[in-house]
Amino acid sequence: MSNKSRYNPVTPKIADELKRIVGDKYVIYGDAEKLDAYSHDETPGKEYAHMPEAVVRPSKTEEIVEIVKLANRELVAITPRGAGSGLSGGAVPIHGGIVISVDRMNRILELDIQNMMIVVEPGVVANDINEYLSEHSLFYAGYPMSLETCFIGGNVAENAGGGKAVKYGVTGRYVLGLEVVTPLGEVVEFGGNLIKDVSGYNMVQLMVGSEGTLGLFTKIILKLLPLPKFQVDLLCLFKSSDEAIAVVPKIMTEVGIIPTGIEFMDRASVKASCEYLNESLPYQQAGAMLLITVDGHDEQQVEREYESIGELCMDSGAVEVYVADNPTTSERIWKVRRNIAEAYNVISSRQGAEDLVVPPAAIPAMVAMFSELSQKFDVMISCFGHAGDGNLHTRIVSAPELSDEKWHEMLPQILEQLYRLTAEAGGRISGEHGIGHKRKKYLPLVVSKEYIDILRAIKRAMDPNNILNPGKIFDM
Amino acid sequence: MSNKSRYNPVTPKIADELKRIVGDKYVIYGDAEKLDAYSHDETPGKEYAHMPEAVVRPSKTEEIVEIVKLANRELVAITPRGAGSGLSGGAVPIHGGIVISVDRMNRILELDIQNMMIVVEPGVVANDINEYLSEHSLFYAGYPMSLETCFIGGNVAENAGGGKAVKYGVTGRYVLGLEVVTPLGEVVEFGGNLIKDVSGYNMVQLMVGSEGTLGLFTKIILKLLPLPKFQVDLLCLFKSSDEAIAVVPKIMTEVGIIPTGIEFMDRASVKASCEYLNESLPYQQAGAMLLITVDGHDEQQVEREYESIGELCMDSGAVEVYVADNPTTSERIWKVRRNIAEAYNVISSRQGAEDLVVPPAAIPAMVAMFSELSQKFDVMISCFGHAGDGNLHTRIVSAPELSDEKWHEMLPQILEQLYRLTAEAGGRISGEHGIGHKRKKYLPLVVSKEYIDILRAIKRAMDPNNILNPGKIFDM
Repeated sequence: MSNKSRYNPVTPKIADELKRIVGDKYVIYGDAEKLDAYSHDETPGKEYAHMPEAVVRPSKTEEIVEIVKLANRELVAITPRGAGSGLSGGAVPIHGGIVISVDRMNRILELDIQNMMIVVEPGVVANDINEYLSEHSLFYAGYPMSLETCFIGGNVAENAGGGKAVKYGVTGRYVLGLEVVTPLGEVVEFGGNLIKDVSGYNMVQLMVGSEGTLGLFTKIILKLLPLPKFQVDLLCLFKSSDEAIAVVPKIMTEVGIIPTGIEFMDRASVKASCEYLNESLPYQQAGAMLLITVDGHDEQQVEREYESIGELCMDSGAVEVYVADNPTTSERIWKVRRNIAEAYNVISSRQGAEDLVVPPAAIPAMVAMFSELSQKFDVMISCFGHAGDGNLHTRIVSAPELSDEKWHEMLPQILEQLYRLTAEAGGRISGEHGIGHKRKKYLPLVVSKEYIDILRAIKRAMDPNNILNPGKIFDM
Repeated sequence: MSNKSRYNPVTPKIADELKRIVGDKYVIYGDAEKLDAYSHDETPGKEYAHMPEAVVRPSKTEEIVEIVKLANRELVAITPRGAGSGLSGGAVPIHGGIVISVDRMNRILELDIQNMMIVVEPGVVANDINEYLSEHSLFYAGYPMSLETCFIGGNVAENAGGGKAVKYGVTGRYVLGLEVVTPLGEVVEFGGNLIKDVSGYNMVQLMVGSEGTLGLFTKIILKLLPLPKFQVDLLCLFKSSDEAIAVVPKIMTEVGIIPTGIEFMDRASVKASCEYLNESLPYQQAGAMLLITVDGHDEQQVEREYESIGELCMDSGAVEVYVADNPTTSERIWKVRRNIAEAYNVISSRQGAEDLVVPPAAIPAMVAMFSELSQKFDVMISCFGHAGDGNLHTRIVSAPELSDEKWHEMLPQILEQLYRLTAEAGGRISGEHGIGHKRKKYLPLVVSKEYIDILRAIKRAMDPNNILNPGKIFDM
């Protein structure tokens, strides 16, 4: 028996109730065309989409409380949604029911300069936080590749990583406090405007990355840092992926520098993004590139660091190292990096977009393995991502001549092998995109049954009706 | 009805079973003198002590599994214990039963230089990790004040903070993976040797700081950093606590530097520690001191940073700034800082040792409030700690002439006021020492009932028999 049967439909009566709570114009019901926009996120593959029965767009915590209580009373599934830029189907309502979109809860509530914190609602676009902060010489260190569109609430729900995580860590490091509507519709504060706090379990970090299954965030307190005055990006060209990847651990273990970020892009990725953007980077010369960023408050230190890293790259076989020491050039290169995923989406609708993570030193073996799999199945497997964290995004792209049937038969086989080999290397199937429902069935390949049972026990303890984003990460 | 009645006694038959599991000589049973050593931690106050019925000292995971399964079968309480250096009674067996001491599980299992990680058992002394690493130019960034004696397992269980947390964060930031024996006696891996991982809830960070109530750690994977080549400590003398404290946020918000640590010590604290160590720091000149550390891989940057901070202190009314730029002098000063708590313990057995945490900018108001309370109750309230994190240790020391009866009547009144004022400032009652059983009854002053109910639900989900360290943080 599937979970699906457990939930009741959204009846016209329930839709009326939703309209009473948030106002008529913020409920979508019975309008398939409008509902369709909420049926998917950015995960390639139509098979991951599912239509909601209703969409509701609350403006404040109290409205969410009412909606969640209603859903519990009527046994209707609810699925929280940010910008819909996710890559694992986390915001897709796979059991139908009600989608709660937080797009109207998009206010920056408080900037606390003395404590270097900011309080925001979940619907604030990640990049808007830093635009807002720029005049205060402070910054929020999250830097997901979708920062121009993604919501901070989604970043917290997925524990988004990104391009600055080598030095600054991922989203969770900056989340100090959360106001949460629990799956039962209670409002609870986890953490607060405190740098340290051990007054109870670390509920903040349990919520971070819980993919909207344990609570809806209504306020987020983020830690800020002094804005670094200097940033330099190095674009390092190598003949092969192997050579590029071999440099990564050396930067930290031999030179002793933790750069802000170390991004890897193979030629196919750079080419795809450059063509998409009508941009030119010198990818013809190179089989692979590293984009290495250093930043800091001390100009000479930043200089010495990028020089040391540049020398290491040249000594390790780099064909060329380009230095971008001004915001315009930096942004040009980073834009290419940020748009790889989107560029691939345009190339073909038949893709697997993966997010493998392994111990960083295992990356060369992984890249070699992609190449073998690529030959074995005769597909393109391209690779880019956060090499400094051991987190590689791979795109498995179908050849145009392949039949749909053949592709859908082949992709799961490739994925299963990819995941198995990742597990053997001590890795996991998601470093920052999440499990969602896309990777749910593969989770047992990399973690034990006992582990998943503990996740289930926690979910059951917090969401006894299994009302909130059911069917994500695991089934009950 | 108290919880106590729920547990069965450790019978001779159970003791024999324990001996079979770990070997005769690693079980203490029926020997009150030897058991007594396991009845308390470093929390001042005999009222927090409680005798165990048995102590067992396993050498490996499999033995812990057997002990935990036995305890579940027989409904006997178990309490994990590290070095016993805790300050909230976390390792005290308040329901009697079995103490599991991990002191024999003290091996460094693996150093993985390529991935900059180390795998250790829970009984490794925190400082031994860095002694071991020193020849590899790597370090573990945890720096609790008890580092020469405390175990890394206890650090993880309490999410220990310490003297380097402003720049490096607390213990949790470095815990990448845990092998855990669950309260039901299953072995589960949480996290792994991965920098990022979102394959399921963040169980690692739920375990960190759970005070031994959700699992026993048997292996800990820690992230390492390149060892900074340069470190300078500034000892900055101010006329008053107010003046010293006022400088703290300016270092970060005005100068834009995140130092490694910013420690605050009032005159009474420095005096107590200097006398205890027979050491001399120039405390006579000062009402309060800041001990500010900067470190880095670039000598000139470190120099510029400490000069900027020194200038800021002098501009903000410092009487004197001493620079310690060699390991010997640095260690002399830090030793004074690390020994304040121990020095106070020697002065009087009648004390309250608190661990308040507030938004950093609220510290001046807190310090003023301590002074008022001190006058109101006519007790000494001294203050030291991690000012850069908003985490202040306060010592409430009874006057020698006060009767025991009067002291025990007065201390709870002072604590309650202290905690209420902390809550009003947006603070919590523990920044790094934990709730344990010492602060359990005060937890509702700073968090909601709904919050504690969620902790209870998680505890119940993972430990249905409430066997593991019962009565800590909250009662069921």
